Amino acid sequence: MEFQLKATDNSTSARSGAVTTAHGSFSTPVFMPVGTVGSVKAVTREQLEQDIAARIILGNTYHLYLRPGTGILEEAGGLHRFCGWDHSILTDSGGYQVFSLAANRKIREEGVVFQSHIDGSRHLFSPESVMDIQRSIGADIIMAFDECVPFPAEYRYVRESMLLTHRWLDRCIARLRETPPKYGYEQTLFPIVQGGMDRGLRRQSAEVIASRGCSGNAIGGLSVGEPEDTLYEMTDLVCGILPPDKPRYLMGVGTPWNILEAIALGVDMFDCVMPTRNGRNGMLFTAGGVINIRNRKWADDFSPVDPDTPCFASQQYSRAYLRHLFVAGEILGMQLASIHNLAFYLHLVKQAGEHILQGDYGPWKDKMTKQLRQRL
Amino acid sequence: MEFQLKATDNSTSARSGAVTTAHGSFSTPVFMPVGTVGSVKAVTREQLEQDIAARIILGNTYHLYLRPGTGILEEAGGLHRFCGWDHSILTDSGGYQVFSLAANRKIREEGVVFQSHIDGSRHLFSPESVMDIQRSIGADIIMAFDECVPFPAEYRYVRESMLLTHRWLDRCIARLRETPPKYGYEQTLFPIVQGGMDRGLRRQSAEVIASRGCSGNAIGGLSVGEPEDTLYEMTDLVCGILPPDKPRYLMGVGTPWNILEAIALGVDMFDCVMPTRNGRNGMLFTAGGVINIRNRKWADDFSPVDPDTPCFASQQYSRAYLRHLFVAGEILGMQLASIHNLAFYLHLVKQAGEHILQGDYGPWKDKMTKQLRQRL
Ligand SMILES: [Zn+2]
Ligand SMILES: [Zn+2]
Repeated sequence: MEFQLKATDNSTSARSGAVTTAHGSFSTPVFMPVGTVGSVKAVTREQLEQDIAARIILGNTYHLYLRPGTGILEEAGGLHRFCGWDHSILTDSGGYQVFSLAANRKIREEGVVFQSHIDGSRHLFSPESVMDIQRSIGADIIMAFDECVPFPAEYRYVRESMLLTHRWLDRCIARLRETPPKYGYEQTLFPIVQGGMDRGLRRQSAEVIASRGCSGNAIGGLSVGEPEDTLYEMTDLVCGILPPDKPRYLMGVGTPWNILEAIALGVDMFDCVMPTRNGRNGMLFTAGGVINIRNRKWADDFSPVDPDTPCFASQQYSRAYLRHLFVAGEILGMQLASIHNLAFYLHLVKQAGEHILQGDYGPWKDKMTKQLRQRL
Repeated sequence: MEFQLKATDNSTSARSGAVTTAHGSFSTPVFMPVGTVGSVKAVTREQLEQDIAARIILGNTYHLYLRPGTGILEEAGGLHRFCGWDHSILTDSGGYQVFSLAANRKIREEGVVFQSHIDGSRHLFSPESVMDIQRSIGADIIMAFDECVPFPAEYRYVRESMLLTHRWLDRCIARLRETPPKYGYEQTLFPIVQGGMDRGLRRQSAEVIASRGCSGNAIGGLSVGEPEDTLYEMTDLVCGILPPDKPRYLMGVGTPWNILEAIALGVDMFDCVMPTRNGRNGMLFTAGGVINIRNRKWADDFSPVDPDTPCFASQQYSRAYLRHLFVAGEILGMQLASIHNLAFYLHLVKQAGEHILQGDYGPWKDKMTKQLRQRL
């Protein structure tokens, strides 16, 4: 994987760059649609590529390990082949899902024992097993196995957990050294900064992560319920420590305004289920603010869903029709809202990149974050 | 509306033709995807037009009347504008849904009083009101208001019901004469043959319907649970009476083999929820037979869903991946299966048309119906 830093903004720490993996290049800042089990929910691969213009998507190791399982993925020749996506893929480490979805989990030095949320079957995720699973999945960028602590949490617990995550990281690195990729192309490990909402622990974690010299770094354990100011404070602190010549990935964030603020702090990569999950519930993001499409006020608004987002779902369907689909419980409503929201997110970070290149990202971001938060 | 009869098969009564409405032409035999509330379930308009190659879809008057309602549809300028479909649309009369979905219905000479299945609200459908509603919807082809009798039913009941349907037809015709179209283009009424499974009543009904001289005619009250032989017997009988220079529409039929058999009897137009409804349940139709994609045998079959159907969903996705989507409960599975099944149905009737032109429809149909019925 290569990262080319192209420009830094005049008045903020925002950066414009490009990442190249064995499956192609993408510009940063980038938003990665979440394709949990090898499918971005309610969106076809063709729409993802052509209409949303995604060039990297995210897969969830926990979900893919349970279904279809590494056996099928290996037979298929990896996730790219299995789901037919020939651009870049990033997989998370399964850590987050093990802590949010699985039952009866027990955390030990060795790893985490848990029961599947699907059938209750018992499994162990360790740094080694998670690296092996990610070798079988074959994503271009893979994540270290970490513990994502809940919010709020005791200082002692956050500290112990962070130290465990650091020890696990070294085992991940060692395991990858011993095991070659399975499909002939490079996979790049991103370690994850933890440390909860404590400045001292965050600094310590960022320093440890930076010291490992990986080709990219991630910030985890944020957007877990903390106030927005804390999200930005922690992100700012960590971005100041992580090396500037490596891409920075803020995991699981967030709203459009969260993303623009985090870009200003120096983050390059994002993922979040919000555009698809909220879309399925009828919440649409636009440059002018948030729309609840179920609202009666849209019943006879025959204007496009969002004329400013360059996508068929945004421009070729009316608000009245989309509202009707939601009210009538039609699947097509979820599809169109998911496509629109993803196209909007990707268009927004693309515009961010252009403003960084122009050097006026700061004022543009200040204007946009005000608009984006409005309720229409 | 115009109907041009192009060819009749050598050894069967199959016909090839073309229908032209104010919204364009389509070849017959034709299959019309069902777009219940102005959306073919789980399929975008773009996919319907480009991938499935549909040129006419069906809307349900009952559903559209309840949601979004004629007020919104009129404000939008009709259903074509509301859902953005600028090819032909046919609407049913609401009769079938009133009898299958609505609650507490009371049939009188005047019409049917019923309660909405959505909110229990009380409504009257009469021949006049249903014509008015279909004027507001603005479909190119509209259906007479009829009673679709259940199967089995007493001879007396079927006879009374058929006579009522005939009286209602004359009221439909009278109402349309008095009321101009609302959007400046012609709407064509198709009357509906009823008469249950009784040869005498079917003959009588077909003669009455034929005598009204409408531009197209429909056969209703079939595919309601009767044996396949009865479906074909009634269809054959009715096709022998309905005028050959007008298109014949067999409502709500059916499986791919039902359709090929009915084409051989002289039917030109079809609709059915089967490709979409069964698709959403994981049943795929192919030229080689029926696939239950949830079956474990497809778990590592990385071949295309159906290489013979010219559609991205059939050719660009593997059976293993589609099975995985269904097992994991992903919406995308329902989308891809619906698109494939519709593309398959439309491709099948297109092939039927080509064989009619070549004059070898009979032997082709015999070979195909055997294959189509197989379980893979
Ligand atoms: Zn998120
Ligand atoms: Zn049907």
